[in-house]
Amino acid sequence: MIESVLPEIDDGRFPIARTPGELVTVSADIFADGHDVVDAALQYRRDGDADWQYEPMQLVTNDRWEAAFRPRNVGIYFYSLRGWVDRFKTWARDLRKKADAGQDLTLDLKTGSQFVAAAAKRASGADTQILNALSARLRKITGNDAAAAVAFSEDEDLLALMSRYRERTGDTVYQRELVMRVDPARARYSTWYEMFPRSCTTSAESPGTLRECAEYVEYVADMGFDVLYLPPIHPIGVTERKGKNNSTTPTAADPGSPWAIGSKDGGHKAINPELGTLADLRALREKAELHGVELALDIAFQCSPDHPYVKEHREWFRSRADGSVQYAENPPKKYQDIYPLDFETSNYAALAEELRSVIFFWVSQGIKIFRVDNPHTKPFPFWEWLIGETQRKYPDAIFLAEAFTRPKVMYRLAKLGFTQSYTYFAWKNTKADLTEYFTEISEPPVSEFFRPNLWPNTPDILNEYLQKGGRPAFIARLVLAATLGANYGIYGPAFELMENVPLREGSEEYLDSEKYQVRVWNRNDPKSLKGLIRRVNSIRRDHVALQHNNGLKFHTTDNPMLIAYSKISEDRGDKILVIVNLDPVNRQMGWVDVVLKEFRLAAGESYEMNDLLTDKKYIWQGTRNYVELNPAVLPAHIFRVEPLR
Amino acid sequence: MIESVLPEIDDGRFPIARTPGELVTVSADIFADGHDVVDAALQYRRDGDADWQYEPMQLVTNDRWEAAFRPRNVGIYFYSLRGWVDRFKTWARDLRKKADAGQDLTLDLKTGSQFVAAAAKRASGADTQILNALSARLRKITGNDAAAAVAFSEDEDLLALMSRYRERTGDTVYQRELVMRVDPARARYSTWYEMFPRSCTTSAESPGTLRECAEYVEYVADMGFDVLYLPPIHPIGVTERKGKNNSTTPTAADPGSPWAIGSKDGGHKAINPELGTLADLRALREKAELHGVELALDIAFQCSPDHPYVKEHREWFRSRADGSVQYAENPPKKYQDIYPLDFETSNYAALAEELRSVIFFWVSQGIKIFRVDNPHTKPFPFWEWLIGETQRKYPDAIFLAEAFTRPKVMYRLAKLGFTQSYTYFAWKNTKADLTEYFTEISEPPVSEFFRPNLWPNTPDILNEYLQKGGRPAFIARLVLAATLGANYGIYGPAFELMENVPLREGSEEYLDSEKYQVRVWNRNDPKSLKGLIRRVNSIRRDHVALQHNNGLKFHTTDNPMLIAYSKISEDRGDKILVIVNLDPVNRQMGWVDVVLKEFRLAAGESYEMNDLLTDKKYIWQGTRNYVELNPAVLPAHIFRVEPLR
Repeated sequence: MIESVLPEIDDGRFPIARTPGELVTVSADIFADGHDVVDAALQYRRDGDADWQYEPMQLVTNDRWEAAFRPRNVGIYFYSLRGWVDRFKTWARDLRKKADAGQDLTLDLKTGSQFVAAAAKRASGADTQILNALSARLRKITGNDAAAAVAFSEDEDLLALMSRYRERTGDTVYQRELVMRVDPARARYSTWYEMFPRSCTTSAESPGTLRECAEYVEYVADMGFDVLYLPPIHPIGVTERKGKNNSTTPTAADPGSPWAIGSKDGGHKAINPELGTLADLRALREKAELHGVELALDIAFQCSPDHPYVKEHREWFRSRADGSVQYAENPPKKYQDIYPLDFETSNYAALAEELRSVIFFWVSQGIKIFRVDNPHTKPFPFWEWLIGETQRKYPDAIFLAEAFTRPKVMYRLAKLGFTQSYTYFAWKNTKADLTEYFTEISEPPVSEFFRPNLWPNTPDILNEYLQKGGRPAFIARLVLAATLGANYGIYGPAFELMENVPLREGSEEYLDSEKYQVRVWNRNDPKSLKGLIRRVNSIRRDHVALQHNNGLKFHTTDNPMLIAYSKISEDRGDKILVIVNLDPVNRQMGWVDVVLKEFRLAAGESYEMNDLLTDKKYIWQGTRNYVELNPAVLPAHIFRVEPLR
Repeated sequence: MIESVLPEIDDGRFPIARTPGELVTVSADIFADGHDVVDAALQYRRDGDADWQYEPMQLVTNDRWEAAFRPRNVGIYFYSLRGWVDRFKTWARDLRKKADAGQDLTLDLKTGSQFVAAAAKRASGADTQILNALSARLRKITGNDAAAAVAFSEDEDLLALMSRYRERTGDTVYQRELVMRVDPARARYSTWYEMFPRSCTTSAESPGTLRECAEYVEYVADMGFDVLYLPPIHPIGVTERKGKNNSTTPTAADPGSPWAIGSKDGGHKAINPELGTLADLRALREKAELHGVELALDIAFQCSPDHPYVKEHREWFRSRADGSVQYAENPPKKYQDIYPLDFETSNYAALAEELRSVIFFWVSQGIKIFRVDNPHTKPFPFWEWLIGETQRKYPDAIFLAEAFTRPKVMYRLAKLGFTQSYTYFAWKNTKADLTEYFTEISEPPVSEFFRPNLWPNTPDILNEYLQKGGRPAFIARLVLAATLGANYGIYGPAFELMENVPLREGSEEYLDSEKYQVRVWNRNDPKSLKGLIRRVNSIRRDHVALQHNNGLKFHTTDNPMLIAYSKISEDRGDKILVIVNLDPVNRQMGWVDVVLKEFRLAAGESYEMNDLLTDKKYIWQGTRNYVELNPAVLPAHIFRVEPLR
């Protein structure tokens, strides 16, 4: 019997997600009726490989077995389990018990010799000869020579050969071949910077272009970001265009929302002429790559009323009762500038084909990372198909789901194939909320398929904590995002310049949001957080513990404003302890109860705490240690923990 | 999407177990992409019924839905779930939001009217007319008459009709039909008494027979037992017969172990001539039934060397290397008087057929309860087949698994079809062990398929606690078994006469065990516990809370020797609190922290504690209450808890 296999997502319906070199530990309850010796192996293979590779499983406790392997390449892998009753090991075990009791072993030795001879027949080449020789040797041991019999039965090489050439027809193979999707390393560890190209300018009257955007690549790379994400760069509709601050009475100069995609200049495969050309995009991409930065584009499958699809494929849009095209609604809100695509159209095949061609077009332009807008408002099967189709051809494509909806819908999108996911991080600002949420998403089963990407802000989300907390709040949220998640991003320059004025009290929208207008930013403002961001990103680059989501452990503090957690690398060589003062106003102090075993520290042992943000060193000892953080100075520690041995 | 369905055992591979009238609460995560209103129903049917019955599901929280039903009959049921996007409820919800915002509703009313007209076409009879009339009424409401529009959209009858006649082609039906086995009520609540018929005598020289056994039916029934379980009643082998205390040198007078089945007088379908005839068995059964007691027989699929199978079906037994029949071994122990059947015989079909015929034979003799000896040493698939075959024909047959092996093997046997299971109860004697074990087996998933049957003693198990604790230990174990489990049993008269001498120090075997010799018991010994047993069984009969395994909750006490737990009936009408002093020597006292919400008691409220063992009444108040139990008097309370309102 092989049951309760882990990891296994929804009875094997969905793959687990890993990156090359990451550990996959597989466990299961494996047992048989009767008292015979059971053995088991993990088997795995890359899609396309003919042969399984095997890892022997080890019994942990209470019929629970375990084995592990590491995939080497990006792509699809399969894994399953195999268990069997090992008659020869059973024989060897019983022989030893009888020998210990001083019983005559004549018949047992005869039985053993028959086992070995049978295995010899199943073996080939040199192994046959070895086994035949062993069988002959066994026949020569007499029934009262317990010492020789036991020594023979304990021969590891013999047991290994007997296991290899066992009668396999009785093996039980687990009923399912489970699937693993191995994504590129950047799927697991990435640092995103979102920027509106049209704000890459020094004057609102002269909006930025892709060429000007390229001039800011050094700025982004210097801070340590490796993904530069651009909101949609397509032509923007004119009909029902929104003005500044989402006004329905725009001026002729208002550039419109980049998410109102499509105009006479083209749709999802075109570039807004105001931003430039495909050649400009290529130049930007190539320059970014020179600096280790990959471009990410926005995929928003929706149309402005002026999108060519509306005329060419009227059947892809739903109709209102008066025959007009149904615009987007979230009653009582109406979005007349956006027409949703109707995935229940009778012409679904053509629609899906066209949307796939959009992705493939941008891949052909060298883009491999896509931030997908509102995926939860399109059908689940569509995404599974689209991402599957893309990754079959381009296994290193990355899809980030911009879904802020109910938890199970977010998890489902990840299961269906989204490589990374936005999270509720922006709304988790208290110690209790952060602890509960990150415990949930950093542990199995969620951690097996869901890769969070944490954003302290986005063009849609300026949370109250940032609005009211000022500089310490921005720093605290930066450190939390960068250390709680191996993937995180900021929307800049709004973030590093600590833009924090909402549209109105109680709103999470920015006043004068870049979604509707060009903004001019003073990137050289001496108050900018860019230096601190560079420092934090460089700590992430130097510390493998921060490049994985597992290994997270919260440590108790006696002050609700002080949150403490550790990140430990899989080999336990890299040990980080982060402490953040969540109060942006007041100095907070308290005692941290360090869970010493996380750091392999003995009770009462002394250890060095090296604050990687300030390079200050402290000596701590044992469990209970004092900490004090002044938000006016720096509201966080990122400690490297080293024993003093 | 319908996922994470509960109860569901091993992806639906195994049935859940219930008895008629028991509640089945089914829950699942149910959600869809987008923002439309989702609705769902539980569907269930008895095997053989053509149509599903439906129960509307209720949203609990976080996309978790729930519904419940009660099976009426013994047999197999199927259940599954159905979910859908309710376009009309979505329309009604959006209409209300738009009305609240003062928007014009003309187009929305037109859309709604189209919905209703379409449903009218799917409906039949009077419903068609009602829906057509509603559609017409809707068309007459004007777009600025928000009050009329909202009133219409909130009409419960309309919403119900629209749900019933929705377009069902878009329904999602859960991928699996889950299975429930509904067993007779006795599967859930039964009180067993094990007795050797040959000890129904007043002289060891004149062993008891089935006829004499019948004379003890009143004795058993009077104590309140409803199942009388007899060890094997078949002919006993002579070859290698064991003498008193498992000696290998028996005298001619030794009767042998009843588990060494088969002699020249027959095998598993025969009755030991020393016990009587089939007619005697029938007479015993009929008399027992008159007293509300059902007979249970022992099924031990193994043979003495003299069993007819050994000659007639030599191929059903394994051979040793010298060609002799392989006897039972648990190295270094040898059981030469027992030949195990070889379920890997090439003639398996005939063997299985024969063993099924054994069960069917005894069913034809009116026996429906079988206590199966050592099922874990026979193949799992055999039991699933055998019990399935039996229950297909006799759905009220009950199989009790006498397996004391690893937990996952015990659970697997229950999943495969065993109605009840022996447990580790005999070795759980401390508060910590009892609490941990009974928490595990009284909660899902285990409680969905595993029905414990608790035995303080058996002919194989006289635990150290009973050996050393004397009368208070027997009483404590009786109360624990009878109140922690809806099914329990004792091996008598050894139990009520407090037989407690082991074969030797450190052994759990009885000295002069009835397994190997006739014992004469003084059932009228004034020290007998029979009066107390009668009392305990009568409390069980009067209190439905004790007839189910769910509703168990442990309450904290500040004394490790005092264990406290409550059993509450499903309707919360029957409320029992049991407190046992586990120390058989010393008076123990302490404070119980009553979890008031279990009893629906308010903080500080007073309530009456009526000790059903002594009829003494106490008034308790609030959480913390004092208790003191003197083992020399009575080591347990079984309280009925009643508020004083």
